[in-house]
Amino acid sequence: MCSAGRHESETVVGRSAAILGAFGAEDGALGVSELSRRTGLPKSTVHRLVRALTAHGLLDRSGSRVRLGLRLFELGQLVPLRRDLRAAALPFMADLRDATHQIVHLAVLDGPEVVYLEILRSADAPAMPSRVGGRLPAHATGVGKAMLAFSPPETVDAVIAAGLPRLSRRTIVLPRLLRRELEGIRAAGCAFDREESGDGVVCAASPVFGSDGAVVGALSISGWSTGMKLERMAPAVRTAALALSRALRAPS
Amino acid sequence: MCSAGRHESETVVGRSAAILGAFGAEDGALGVSELSRRTGLPKSTVHRLVRALTAHGLLDRSGSRVRLGLRLFELGQLVPLRRDLRAAALPFMADLRDATHQIVHLAVLDGPEVVYLEILRSADAPAMPSRVGGRLPAHATGVGKAMLAFSPPETVDAVIAAGLPRLSRRTIVLPRLLRRELEGIRAAGCAFDREESGDGVVCAASPVFGSDGAVVGALSISGWSTGMKLERMAPAVRTAALALSRALRAPS
Repeated sequence: MCSAGRHESETVVGRSAAILGAFGAEDGALGVSELSRRTGLPKSTVHRLVRALTAHGLLDRSGSRVRLGLRLFELGQLVPLRRDLRAAALPFMADLRDATHQIVHLAVLDGPEVVYLEILRSADAPAMPSRVGGRLPAHATGVGKAMLAFSPPETVDAVIAAGLPRLSRRTIVLPRLLRRELEGIRAAGCAFDREESGDGVVCAASPVFGSDGAVVGALSISGWSTGMKLERMAPAVRTAALALSRALRAPS
Repeated sequence: MCSAGRHESETVVGRSAAILGAFGAEDGALGVSELSRRTGLPKSTVHRLVRALTAHGLLDRSGSRVRLGLRLFELGQLVPLRRDLRAAALPFMADLRDATHQIVHLAVLDGPEVVYLEILRSADAPAMPSRVGGRLPAHATGVGKAMLAFSPPETVDAVIAAGLPRLSRRTIVLPRLLRRELEGIRAAGCAFDREESGDGVVCAASPVFGSDGAVVGALSISGWSTGMKLERMAPAVRTAALALSRALRAPS
């Protein structure tokens, strides 16, 4: 159990990450018993780690209830991938929003999933379930397919190997169909989500490339299938993604 | 060193927090030597913890360089204090921005400092150094003084005990003057920052109260001393803070 400091470090860090990861998007404060249940760790271990994590502001304890701490929010604001890409993308995202009156997403690829870094909503845009910091399986989203289409083959293989979960009745769940879809996206430079991530929701997405020419993210315009002409949105999102890519290539 | 698991846990969590905390607002990737220098930890220890933190997405390693990981951004978005207060405040902040064409801040108190949860800038508002997730000493800011004025005496005592650093030539650094200032703010329900946090920057701030009647945050309108009439901003920020407090009291 307490042999080498190395093994112990990995154990403690892993258990700490498990406790922090036990909090969901809807959770406020959780009790130690609930954390023990969600992490599978003994209550005594959870108690010990909660005390240590609270001492450093990573958790916030009031009585017997525990919340994610403000320090995590501070650290999260400093994550370079998010901070720098978001800062470069915001003006282009605002232009897209104002030009289309829809919802504009900026996302990055993280393993087989996409993570939303920023979302700009036009005041008259419909409400959407997407959330900044939220995740979705890459193959089921426009931004995800746009990034996968321009990623190395091994990235696509890994996504397929991880399985292709179904989010809606239109989600592409067959590897063969996904590969064919990605070929089309490579040719067009634009990806469409036709109610593949959720019923009624559609989007047009385009990849963003970094200074080294590798795909670093994707922009998309989302709306309801009833209220948005996807083909009309494609040129706008493609133009914004190209402009952002050029900005990222420019020596700053 | 490796006696009880408890002591070891606190050590590992503390060192991990130190490594995460070693990254500043302007930092991108850092090397292990630099992290060792900033944390005072041996390189071997930093190596070991970086490996463990990277395995859980809290750090992101490319070659020998290390960055804060995307997982921290995700977790940070889930911090309830920020998530819930920000969500409730955004519409009121947007109204303030549109009504004043200045910069609107939402902040909370964390020990002797304020942390900015959200900032809304009017398109024609001046640029400001403030940053979402950034910190400033509470006694030197409008939002900080607004919260301190309505906090328990022991909170104010702790801030004074922590020392009153000077941010500008107008910062209130004398305990006696700070206490008198807070009395006036309690009476007025509004705090002013007259170039106390930085030369040329002024703001009017008002406290926000939670369902239990305790102060939970503060709203402010900031601008340049040359371009903003503080007294004219006070009723607007006070009104928005009262409306937000009422919204927080309303059973949801």
